Amino acid sequence: MFFEGSEKKVEVVVCESTPSLRSLGQDYWSNLVAHANAEILSTVSNDKCDAYLLSESSLFVWDHHFVMLTCGTTTLVNAVLHFLESFEKEQVLSLIFQRKNEYLSHLQKSSFNEDINKLEKELTGKAYQLGNLDTHHNYVYHLDKPYTATPDDYTYELLMYHIHGNAAQYLRSEHQSADKIRELLELDQLLPGFEINDFVFEPFGYSMNAIKDQLYATIHITPQEESSYVSFETNMDLSAVNSNILERLTTILQPNSFDIISFNGIPNINPPSHTLMNHVSEPLSCGYMMRFYEYMRGEPKMGRGVSIL
Amino acid sequence: MFFEGSEKKVEVVVCESTPSLRSLGQDYWSNLVAHANAEILSTVSNDKCDAYLLSESSLFVWDHHFVMLTCGTTTLVNAVLHFLESFEKEQVLSLIFQRKNEYLSHLQKSSFNEDINKLEKELTGKAYQLGNLDTHHNYVYHLDKPYTATPDDYTYELLMYHIHGNAAQYLRSEHQSADKIRELLELDQLLPGFEINDFVFEPFGYSMNAIKDQLYATIHITPQEESSYVSFETNMDLSAVNSNILERLTTILQPNSFDIISFNGIPNINPPSHTLMNHVSEPLSCGYMMRFYEYMRGEPKMGRGVSIL
Repeated sequence: MFFEGSEKKVEVVVCESTPSLRSLGQDYWSNLVAHANAEILSTVSNDKCDAYLLSESSLFVWDHHFVMLTCGTTTLVNAVLHFLESFEKEQVLSLIFQRKNEYLSHLQKSSFNEDINKLEKELTGKAYQLGNLDTHHNYVYHLDKPYTATPDDYTYELLMYHIHGNAAQYLRSEHQSADKIRELLELDQLLPGFEINDFVFEPFGYSMNAIKDQLYATIHITPQEESSYVSFETNMDLSAVNSNILERLTTILQPNSFDIISFNGIPNINPPSHTLMNHVSEPLSCGYMMRFYEYMRGEPKMGRGVSIL
Repeated sequence: MFFEGSEKKVEVVVCESTPSLRSLGQDYWSNLVAHANAEILSTVSNDKCDAYLLSESSLFVWDHHFVMLTCGTTTLVNAVLHFLESFEKEQVLSLIFQRKNEYLSHLQKSSFNEDINKLEKELTGKAYQLGNLDTHHNYVYHLDKPYTATPDDYTYELLMYHIHGNAAQYLRSEHQSADKIRELLELDQLLPGFEINDFVFEPFGYSMNAIKDQLYATIHITPQEESSYVSFETNMDLSAVNSNILERLTTILQPNSFDIISFNGIPNINPPSHTLMNHVSEPLSCGYMMRFYEYMRGEPKMGRGVSIL
């Protein structure tokens, strides 16, 4: 029952003089998503953004930028290469490609190094590993080109590993409902005014896209015991003192360990149950300050082995 | 400059009625080692044991059992299968195969699951994962056959990741000497009366075998920054209150994190600088109590990313 919930992610910004990316239409994006071995399940839109829920994670498209996350053994890099075929190099202002900490990286179709070797045939970039190889780490590749982010351009990623407690138990149970999951995750309170589009997978697994004007939030849940993973990502400003989303989600889902990655924002979190193990800051030459925080449960775990034969 | 220091390991016991394994001769063992893609560099012997220093780690052969460790991208499982060709199944009393926590498992020639699928064609075993997938863990496969270990049958493995400090700095420097490394590691005091056979690799890297009667100890050092690894393993009784080997080595080498694995012994360690993150106990049906301890540095690390392009 192993499934790699951990995502690959790409964020691309094109210049204002290109036609709106939204005007490329759903067929274009369906085809792009297919290059990663995923497919579009459903869509919600508002004035600013089209949010696609995928068979493996999510795609958000605005007029001049898009964000795509894919999990499992998808080949996101191939979708990126496909996108680059449609545009001149000068039209691409920013491109950031990430791979999150994977449970079983040897099961992936390619390594991060193989991915960036492909990207380097089309682009000139830089790449970093944030966090140590023997524990949580995040890989990032970005176009090596000066870019000035707008003051409200934040990204926060919360990656939770080995969830526990009541919510985790429900997420592993049979016959779940989207309503109950929304309630457990307190989405009404945490994402007020957002339009939500979600999907409950069989036998379990949950994906959610939420949009409000130009803002997005997305949650993906792989609840399987021994390799559970939940990701939350948003472009909301979570450094604001009154934002407690990260703390609520880590309290509800009780992960053994979690990572926070931010671009241009300092997350507002001080979890009593977890200890900061590692904090990496890397100013990227593409204009973002990237931060990586690794937290682990403060109390030592005690237990038995996991039988695998 | 990446090198996977983390080892695969096998320990096999055959019945007393078989001819001594030592009498198979060096040609037999050279050939067996070649099946793992390693070679014998040098040998020391005493009345009880032949200790082979390998191009990738070590082999110890007693009359009726042997221990072999190989690192890098060696294929230890193939050496085990080769050994099994020479013996009847009934002659094998115990077989334990392990894979330590790897930095970059996707670079290995096979996964643990692939290894145990090969072994299961010849044997009937059980397999466990001790420790979580997102952080340190140890895989073990063992023959599912009752076996009664002698009261003095202990094994301790100390696996250190990301070493720091003066000793680490020397181990990364040019023109090292074995004498200086022995002195830094305090081997005279920690292994009194042992015959030592060691080797300094170019440009760096160190391997050491030590024997004294039926006792052995072995150290392997991969000092490379960003993926440094040092392993120590012995069949001495380190649960004894007067044994401070584990504490000395972790103090000298200042790893970010380390694991201790024991078979039938409780390690004597209480490091002030590190926090116990996980403790797994698994009674194996082959008669050993296996314990896994994961320690991490208490203070959070703070730093920059690692440039990889």
